[in-house]
Amino acid sequence: MQKFNVYNPTQIIFGEGRIAELAEHIAADARVMVLYGGGSAERNGTLVEVKNALGARHVQMFAGIEPNPSYETLSKAVDIVRADKIDFLLAVGGGSVIDGTKFVAAAALFEGDTWSILQQGGTNIKQALPMGTVLTLPATGSEMNNGGVVTRLATKTKLPFHSNLVFPQFSILDPTKTYTLPARQVANGVVDAYVHVMEQYLTYPVNALVQDRFAEGLLQTLIEIGEQAVQEADNYNVRANLMWTATLALNGLIGAGVPQDWSTHLLGHELTAQYGLDHAQTLAIILPNMLQLRRKEKHAKLLQYAQRVWNITDGNDEQRIDAAIAKTREFFEAVGVRTRLSDYQLGEECIEPVLAQLQAHGMLQLGEHQDVTPEQCRTVLHMSL
Amino acid sequence: MQKFNVYNPTQIIFGEGRIAELAEHIAADARVMVLYGGGSAERNGTLVEVKNALGARHVQMFAGIEPNPSYETLSKAVDIVRADKIDFLLAVGGGSVIDGTKFVAAAALFEGDTWSILQQGGTNIKQALPMGTVLTLPATGSEMNNGGVVTRLATKTKLPFHSNLVFPQFSILDPTKTYTLPARQVANGVVDAYVHVMEQYLTYPVNALVQDRFAEGLLQTLIEIGEQAVQEADNYNVRANLMWTATLALNGLIGAGVPQDWSTHLLGHELTAQYGLDHAQTLAIILPNMLQLRRKEKHAKLLQYAQRVWNITDGNDEQRIDAAIAKTREFFEAVGVRTRLSDYQLGEECIEPVLAQLQAHGMLQLGEHQDVTPEQCRTVLHMSL
Repeated sequence: MQKFNVYNPTQIIFGEGRIAELAEHIAADARVMVLYGGGSAERNGTLVEVKNALGARHVQMFAGIEPNPSYETLSKAVDIVRADKIDFLLAVGGGSVIDGTKFVAAAALFEGDTWSILQQGGTNIKQALPMGTVLTLPATGSEMNNGGVVTRLATKTKLPFHSNLVFPQFSILDPTKTYTLPARQVANGVVDAYVHVMEQYLTYPVNALVQDRFAEGLLQTLIEIGEQAVQEADNYNVRANLMWTATLALNGLIGAGVPQDWSTHLLGHELTAQYGLDHAQTLAIILPNMLQLRRKEKHAKLLQYAQRVWNITDGNDEQRIDAAIAKTREFFEAVGVRTRLSDYQLGEECIEPVLAQLQAHGMLQLGEHQDVTPEQCRTVLHMSL
Repeated sequence: MQKFNVYNPTQIIFGEGRIAELAEHIAADARVMVLYGGGSAERNGTLVEVKNALGARHVQMFAGIEPNPSYETLSKAVDIVRADKIDFLLAVGGGSVIDGTKFVAAAALFEGDTWSILQQGGTNIKQALPMGTVLTLPATGSEMNNGGVVTRLATKTKLPFHSNLVFPQFSILDPTKTYTLPARQVANGVVDAYVHVMEQYLTYPVNALVQDRFAEGLLQTLIEIGEQAVQEADNYNVRANLMWTATLALNGLIGAGVPQDWSTHLLGHELTAQYGLDHAQTLAIILPNMLQLRRKEKHAKLLQYAQRVWNITDGNDEQRIDAAIAKTREFFEAVGVRTRLSDYQLGEECIEPVLAQLQAHGMLQLGEHQDVTPEQCRTVLHMSL
C-alpha cells in the first residue's frame, strides 16, 4: 500500500425528504446564491422545495450552468456574487452544476485572473466561499470531493482543478429527486461512476486489499443495478444505491494508497471539448480500447477484475482478459451508452484535432506509469472508430 | 436503504515515517498534553519520535491510561489539563488511549460532574479540546470516529459516549509502529475489527448494496490477513492492511443507512467490567452464540454472509448457516483468541452477576430489533460456557 492522506469533511444527508433540513445547515443571516442548470430542477419541484427551506434568507437565483460548465457562464455568476455580497453558495443539480459552483466559490474571492485557477489546477486557491449541494443526478461524485472540471468555450479547453477549500460543507442526497431525469443522463451517470472506479482500480497491484475490495464492490453494485436504474425511474431502492455508489466512487476513499490512471478521462475531455460528446459517452468509447492497448501493463489487475467482478474463470489468462474487456463494453451498451466513435457520427477526421489539443494542454504522459503518449492515444482513437 | 447522515472530518495520515509531519498539524504555540498507556510506546521509540516532532512546544506527558480506560485515571488528566492550561491533546496508543483522550477533551471543558458525560452518552458535550492521535494498535477504529468507552472502576460500570466534538482532527497511522505489539494485542485487534463489522452487517437486509459489499470486503480482508498479522510482526503490507481495515470497520461508513446490532458488544462490556477479560475476548466468546440464538431473525443475512464471505454453497439453508457460524468461531481461534468462558476460567457463577449489571445499566432491549432481553443474554452466556 502506498502512503496516503484521506480527508473529507463533507456531511452527507441522505434520504427522501431531507431537503427540508436545509435551513439547519446554512446560517440564518446568510446571503445565498442558488446555482442550477436548466429546467429540470424547476420541473421536478426541487427548486421550490429549496426556496421554501431557505425561508427568509436573501436568495439570488443563478440559472443556466451548462453540462460541462463554461468559464464564460461561471464568470457571470462570480460578478453577481461579488456585487450582491453573497456569502453562501448552494448548488442544485448534478456534477456540472456542482463543479461550476466550486469554481465560483473560489473565483469570487480570488485576486487576479480567475482563469489561472484552472491553469494551475487549483493550487493557487487561498480561500473560497462556503457551499452546499442538493444533488439531483448521481454520476460525478463532485458532491463529496474537492475537485471540478471547467471548460473555456473560447478555446475549447477543459481543465480540472482541486482544492480542499472547495469541499461542500454538506450535500443532500434525496434519491426521489432523480425520478424525473432523462434515461440518457441516468445511463451516463452509471458509466461515469463505473469509469471513476476503474481509473482508480484497474492499474497494478500494490497490496491494497481493502481498496480493491471496495472498488470491486462498487463495480458489482453498478453491474447489479445499472440497467434497472435506467429503466425504472421511480424505483427508490435502485436509485438510492446508484446515488450512494456514485458518491463513493470518487470521494477519495478507494483511490487512497493506490496508483491511479485517469488517461481515459483526460483523453475523453478533449473529445467532449472538441465535439460536444457527453462526458460519459467519451469514457464508454475510450475505456475498453485503453484497457485493450495496455493489457500487458495492467495484466494482473485485469485478471483480478475478470475473476472478482465478472466471475470469469474459464480460459487462459489472455482469454479471460478479453472476456472481461468485452463484458465491460457490453455493460455500457446495455445501459444505453454506445461505445464507438461511429455511433456518434465521428470518423477518422476527429483524431488529429483531438491529439493536437491533448498536446496543446501538455497531456504527453498519461496513466499510472506516466507512459501513455499521444501516439498511444492516437492508437486508442483508431481502435475506437 | 435507511436515511442516514455521514460526517467524518478526521484527516488520516497513513504510511511509514509520517510521525515526522506531526508539527504541520498542531499550532506552533500549542500547549500539548501527550497521553499514552504504558511502556510499549516508550519501548518502540514512538514517544521519542513524537517528542522530537513537537519541537519547542510546551509538552505535558501523561502516562498510565489503562486498557479499558478508567474514569478515575482520566479524571487526573483532566485536572492537569485544567491546571496547566493545555489546549491540544495528542493520544499515542491504541483504542483505550484514544477513547480516554476523547473523554479528557470533553471533560476538561465540561461544567459540572464529568461522570454525567457518560451517563448521558455524550449528548451533553458542548465543547471539547482539539485532539489528534498517533495510532499504535489497529483495532477499535477510535482514531477515526466520534465515540469512546470509559469504565468507572469504583462501580464496575463501562459506558460508551459519542459526540461530533471529539472526532480527532488527525490520526497518524504508521504500520511500522505496530511491529513491537504483543501477539495477543494484534489478535485482539483482528477480532475487534471483525466484530465491529459484524455488528453493522449481520442484521437484516435493507437493500443497502454498497454497505454490504464494503462490509464483506472488510471481513474477507481480515480473514485473508488475520493469522499472518499475528504471526509476522514486521510484515509491512499485512500490518498496513490490518491498520486500514480496522479503521474503516468503525468510522461510520459501513454502518450508514443500515440497522445495527451491538448486542455482542454491550453484553461483552459487562464481562470485561466484572471479570477483566480483554474486550476482544468477550466478543469472540459471545458473537458465535449470539448469532446462533438469533439465527431466525438474522436468517437472510447469515445466508448472504455464508456465501459471500465464506464461500459456503453446499447444504441446505440451516447447514450453511451452521457452517458460517462455525467458520467464524474457527477464525477467532485461529488468530489466537479463545471462544469459551471456560477458556478464561469462568463458569456458571459468572452469569448472574453479569446479568445483574446489564440490567442495572438499563440494557434491557438490545439488538437491531431491540428484542434481545436479559433472558436471551442469559441463554447466550449459558451457551458460551
